[in-house]
Amino acid sequence: MAKIPHRLYLTEDQMPKQWYNLRADMKEQPDPIINPATMQPAVEEDLYPVFCKKLAHQEMDAQTRFIDIPEPVQEMYKIYRPSPLIRAYELERALDTPARIYYKFEGNNTSGSHKLNSAIAQAYYAKEQGLTSLTTETGAGQWGTALSEACCYFDIPLTVYMVKVSYEQKPFRKSVMHTFDANVIASPSETTEVGRRILAENPKTTGSLGCAISEAVEKAVTTKGCRYVLGSVLNQVLLHQSIIGLESQTAMEILGEYPDIIIGCAGGGSNLGGLIAPFMRDKLTGKANPRIIAVEPASCPSFTRGKYAYDFCDTGKITPMARMYTLGCGFIPSANHAGGLRYHGMSPILSKLYHDGYMEAVSVEQTSVFEAATYFAKHETILPAPESAHAIRAAIDEALKCKESGESKTILFGLTGTGYFDMTAYASYQEGRMQDYIPTDEELQKGFDSLPHIPGIQ
Amino acid sequence: MAKIPHRLYLTEDQMPKQWYNLRADMKEQPDPIINPATMQPAVEEDLYPVFCKKLAHQEMDAQTRFIDIPEPVQEMYKIYRPSPLIRAYELERALDTPARIYYKFEGNNTSGSHKLNSAIAQAYYAKEQGLTSLTTETGAGQWGTALSEACCYFDIPLTVYMVKVSYEQKPFRKSVMHTFDANVIASPSETTEVGRRILAENPKTTGSLGCAISEAVEKAVTTKGCRYVLGSVLNQVLLHQSIIGLESQTAMEILGEYPDIIIGCAGGGSNLGGLIAPFMRDKLTGKANPRIIAVEPASCPSFTRGKYAYDFCDTGKITPMARMYTLGCGFIPSANHAGGLRYHGMSPILSKLYHDGYMEAVSVEQTSVFEAATYFAKHETILPAPESAHAIRAAIDEALKCKESGESKTILFGLTGTGYFDMTAYASYQEGRMQDYIPTDEELQKGFDSLPHIPGIQ
Repeated sequence: MAKIPHRLYLTEDQMPKQWYNLRADMKEQPDPIINPATMQPAVEEDLYPVFCKKLAHQEMDAQTRFIDIPEPVQEMYKIYRPSPLIRAYELERALDTPARIYYKFEGNNTSGSHKLNSAIAQAYYAKEQGLTSLTTETGAGQWGTALSEACCYFDIPLTVYMVKVSYEQKPFRKSVMHTFDANVIASPSETTEVGRRILAENPKTTGSLGCAISEAVEKAVTTKGCRYVLGSVLNQVLLHQSIIGLESQTAMEILGEYPDIIIGCAGGGSNLGGLIAPFMRDKLTGKANPRIIAVEPASCPSFTRGKYAYDFCDTGKITPMARMYTLGCGFIPSANHAGGLRYHGMSPILSKLYHDGYMEAVSVEQTSVFEAATYFAKHETILPAPESAHAIRAAIDEALKCKESGESKTILFGLTGTGYFDMTAYASYQEGRMQDYIPTDEELQKGFDSLPHIPGIQ
Repeated sequence: MAKIPHRLYLTEDQMPKQWYNLRADMKEQPDPIINPATMQPAVEEDLYPVFCKKLAHQEMDAQTRFIDIPEPVQEMYKIYRPSPLIRAYELERALDTPARIYYKFEGNNTSGSHKLNSAIAQAYYAKEQGLTSLTTETGAGQWGTALSEACCYFDIPLTVYMVKVSYEQKPFRKSVMHTFDANVIASPSETTEVGRRILAENPKTTGSLGCAISEAVEKAVTTKGCRYVLGSVLNQVLLHQSIIGLESQTAMEILGEYPDIIIGCAGGGSNLGGLIAPFMRDKLTGKANPRIIAVEPASCPSFTRGKYAYDFCDTGKITPMARMYTLGCGFIPSANHAGGLRYHGMSPILSKLYHDGYMEAVSVEQTSVFEAATYFAKHETILPAPESAHAIRAAIDEALKCKESGESKTILFGLTGTGYFDMTAYASYQEGRMQDYIPTDEELQKGFDSLPHIPGIQ
């Protein structure tokens, strides 16, 4: 019998009581976000019309290393957490690798992903402030589902702007959100100025995440007692998601392990930033030196082919501007690409760490991702989300390198979610209809042309 | 902070190493199954053409109280087990009940239900015997998915006859099975005699579970090295599913709890039989006296309105006959009814126990089941399978009785799976299109008319 169990669940007592704020240990901070109204660095108060106060504070707080998780948030975490740290014995055996592969599985909840970790925090703070409604956007639907659950739990009405193509192709996602009482609107819609403008310009548009963000933000700032919440990219989201990394670190300590390589898929960076947080701390403080690898789709390659520049977070150019790796807020990812990870930008924290050489990034093509997903499902019996499968692809590649070199490295990757609502993409892969897509330099240039001009800065 | 954690996971060391065979403690045994070829009680060898030898032996073994779980089966169990025993704190709070509600959640695996527990055992024994392929049927798709996973893991080819209406309405289920390399065929099909006969009689039929069973059995007995496997009803399946009850009992012991009421949904009886097994043992041996409640759909009420009679297990009348509560193998459940639990019969073990007064049964209507499912999802954050929601309905009703009486009873129910592939039914409920259906006495009589005549017996 194996000494290390297949699955390690922490007990409730071992669960983190505080989130970890990675910025407190960064030697150099990400550049400040810029208020497009003043073209000056934003202050906390600038964010109050969009975010509730506690979250605005968390967004700007680069000093406080550990932040208490409010008791009601801990209570809701306990309904579905801790998530298991799983030793991939079957995958190791199938690959015949000396590597020791672990994954932190965040898919065992109805939202189907890690997104619930931040949704709960954001819904709670909104309720605490006495807000009466929230808005958000969702692409593939994981974030919308997660936030619907959290808002239902804390009894605060929610409107979700769902990218139209997903709204039409994924009616089941919509029904799940309806179960949790969310108001789901196909974006672009007639309910906002920006939606009406985009529809007037292009009545047949199937929408984009950037456009849905613009609508959700507009709705929030023009509705009394309403604020906007976002499921990735933001500093506050990475803070909440640090629970993934903290639990992973505690679990690995119990097992007497430490990862040589940490791998996460990267769209806006919420999972990756959360997973790596405490390990990056070790790296920043010189305690350890694990390799950290971000994995992104070749079709939306913000780290590997993007620019480190100030950009808007949305297509409608109404949000503050952040310095990040970006393809330009005008970049429209190929419809060919399945699942999430389609965002034009990247978490400013992760962008800075990547820029400063603390982490690596690779891009992978879609069919090789689904090949890895299927291989993983067959051996580990979990059907992964396409997003998560980006990390699986890289983990398998690293494990195969170990096989070649004979090194018994410890690999930890984040399995962010399950693929039950992505079967159309799986079927397309199984039937040989799935195609890879890599944008040309010319196509990328079009996106870069949409980057804002900021007097004196860029 | 609550003393009893929200979720209790056993450690690998605490997981059962043996299944429990309920028959060993039954004072009176279920009546013997009858071989339709001889009209005589079947012996183990009669089953060899259909089942692999070890499973045929388990089917007939009423003596051995505990049966070792083979090491490779234990290994695969560890990939997704133990399943959590969850204290429904949020549900209790919402209902404002003094009852203490626990549920054993079997949905945290890609098959989405408890079905995997028996699928693994059956695939393993088939492989061990050197068989080269297996056949089965699936209705809602949970069993087909579970068996696909197990057969892929043990590397044995599988053909799944999927009820045509599900095949067409649930293409995603099919894609999941394809991920695990299963050959999925819409039933009735042209690949079997019985399929061709049924199609000739009724070319537009959308199929039924009984018909798919007939096809799968025929295919198995006419193909060299092939056997048939079934996901419910059979004694062997209840044996394998006893792991649910054994884990539950150990977990409750750790918590210092013992259930006053145990509730499970009942279609063919696999979950219910597995969940209650060790508690029924206590009842049979006089150690304890919990109430045990089977919950079935009002649209397919085998316990509450069926006859305790010998019947075929399939529509095509090619399987052995078992004495059980049945609506008649010719009973076709209303298409109106969502999800599983549509089988005309019931586990012979459970039928006997019910007949002898060891358990109760209630039937519940569809809309009240979805009401309970939605209420549960909102408070416990897990979106339940419609099947599982039958048990939730009854658990809520019992908890509300406790509220009225002021009694603080301990309720344990089985949450067999998740509803991610049942969103069409959820949407129909949400949009007010779902209707209840209760068969008339005349409709039931038609089913009873299909019961076989057995000279000298019935």
